[in-house]
Amino acid sequence: MRPAPEDVRTVVCAGAGVIGGGWVAWFLARGYRVVAWDPDPAAEDRLRHLVDAAWPALSELGLADGADRAHLSFEPDLATACAQADLVQESAPEDLALKRRLLKELDAATPADVVISSSTSGYAMTEMQVDCAQPGRTVVGHPFNPPYLIPLVEVVGGELTDADAVTWTADFFRLAGKSVIQMDREVPGFIANRLQEALWREALHMVAAGEATVEQIDLSITDGPGLRWPLMGPLLTFHLAGGQGGMAHMLDHFGPSLLSPWTRLEAPELTRELRDAVVDGCEREAGGRTIDDLVAERDRGVIAVLRALGRA
Amino acid sequence: MRPAPEDVRTVVCAGAGVIGGGWVAWFLARGYRVVAWDPDPAAEDRLRHLVDAAWPALSELGLADGADRAHLSFEPDLATACAQADLVQESAPEDLALKRRLLKELDAATPADVVISSSTSGYAMTEMQVDCAQPGRTVVGHPFNPPYLIPLVEVVGGELTDADAVTWTADFFRLAGKSVIQMDREVPGFIANRLQEALWREALHMVAAGEATVEQIDLSITDGPGLRWPLMGPLLTFHLAGGQGGMAHMLDHFGPSLLSPWTRLEAPELTRELRDAVVDGCEREAGGRTIDDLVAERDRGVIAVLRALGRA
Repeated sequence: MRPAPEDVRTVVCAGAGVIGGGWVAWFLARGYRVVAWDPDPAAEDRLRHLVDAAWPALSELGLADGADRAHLSFEPDLATACAQADLVQESAPEDLALKRRLLKELDAATPADVVISSSTSGYAMTEMQVDCAQPGRTVVGHPFNPPYLIPLVEVVGGELTDADAVTWTADFFRLAGKSVIQMDREVPGFIANRLQEALWREALHMVAAGEATVEQIDLSITDGPGLRWPLMGPLLTFHLAGGQGGMAHMLDHFGPSLLSPWTRLEAPELTRELRDAVVDGCEREAGGRTIDDLVAERDRGVIAVLRALGRA
Repeated sequence: MRPAPEDVRTVVCAGAGVIGGGWVAWFLARGYRVVAWDPDPAAEDRLRHLVDAAWPALSELGLADGADRAHLSFEPDLATACAQADLVQESAPEDLALKRRLLKELDAATPADVVISSSTSGYAMTEMQVDCAQPGRTVVGHPFNPPYLIPLVEVVGGELTDADAVTWTADFFRLAGKSVIQMDREVPGFIANRLQEALWREALHMVAAGEATVEQIDLSITDGPGLRWPLMGPLLTFHLAGGQGGMAHMLDHFGPSLLSPWTRLEAPELTRELRDAVVDGCEREAGGRTIDDLVAERDRGVIAVLRALGRA
């Protein structure tokens, strides 16, 4: 039986490498009991080392009531582990055949309706759930490295996933303290990885063409736009670049720069529809804050980040 | 005569909009005398308002000895302004014909050899310097918004620019406290804007295709990879994603994901040469720090950023 999100007590983490181990540390810090499973005989030692290394950071950020590293047990038998699960988080290596096999086993061993969430960074659940008898409860819950510090989790189902399993997963992660994006369709790379991958590929092209060095590329982000992105995403940032006219002014006046060869990525046509969707989205995000408010907020944020990193 | 970088006293800021005004505030905070010029009759009031608004932030970050807002004067006549310049920073609107005309006027009015630096965010100096009698001292010095807070300046010359003018400009900005990337060739969009533009275009495609909303896109960055980018650029970040094997492991094992449809941007071929260039660059950047060192540094940094932004 699937418990209510607030009644989850035990999370089974299947796969305890860098991502799986990061999840273990985070679930423990949020007060859950964690049963970890990994086929590698060296995994338990590595996992306990990872949790110990992450614990000071998690303590500094604030532990949930009752959070305790002692609530971690390592279970060598997958079925024994899964029998106890209120939620399974799968973090096996990115190998489709392996993911399919493991999800099938998890599905067979986990109580009916209990959600099986996958950390996959790129496969669609539709591709992975094919051998499951109960694919309706298999969901992607994609974290960012390290999962014990980065809030984002992207949640999306596959073709055979029940809509309420997707909603349950999003509700659970939100309740537990994550920042959740619930997607209504499968997009290769989800959202953050698509954006990150575009930047990564442009960077590789620049190195390959001798246009910039690795150091120049990294410096251009850490000392440039990267200082704004923990505060405001790329679209709200550009809302401020348009002056008092915001994103509308930005698109209406700088739209032609989409034809500039500023990246190897072709731009979409800036239709009225796209223009309005972006403008409306920025205005919703601004939520009544004026451009002056947002500028002041950005400045305070950039200063706080610079000071926090000892760079002021 | 071009003064030594450490002997610059007076900077002429030609164009006092959002970018030019941001430069004015920054130069004042770094202790320079600033002469501002702008053809708009309303510019002086707007500029003084901008400087006053930025001053508390600049004071908090630390003013240079002798820095004083009273060291700003507004000069309606361009030639009178330029006659006093140890450096000219041009920040006119992004319009090629206008930039050409203005650079020609600045060049005619500014003492020989004094550097004329342009804030252009996308034109090559080769395109802009065509009407100058002394194009050898015209250089791009491209800031990021707001120039009074974001450290990055990209410095690059045009075909007719003297190499020593480019080096002088880089030296001056470094001495004055900026984080400088000195490029040895003109690349459309320079470096940071190319990377930012790839991400922006992928985001627009996603909105256009209904794959993600504006809010989802921004949240995916602010609560995901954006939290790492003020600390470590995209390439050093991926150096950590490879576990103990670093970027070498990352490229050797995850290289095939470059063929995945995770963005609309085609990837370059991952040749041995490109692989080695990226691996070597990351190792130079790491400068002897182990993966464990870098992970600990990243974690401390992410926590500091989260706390600084009140999100811990």
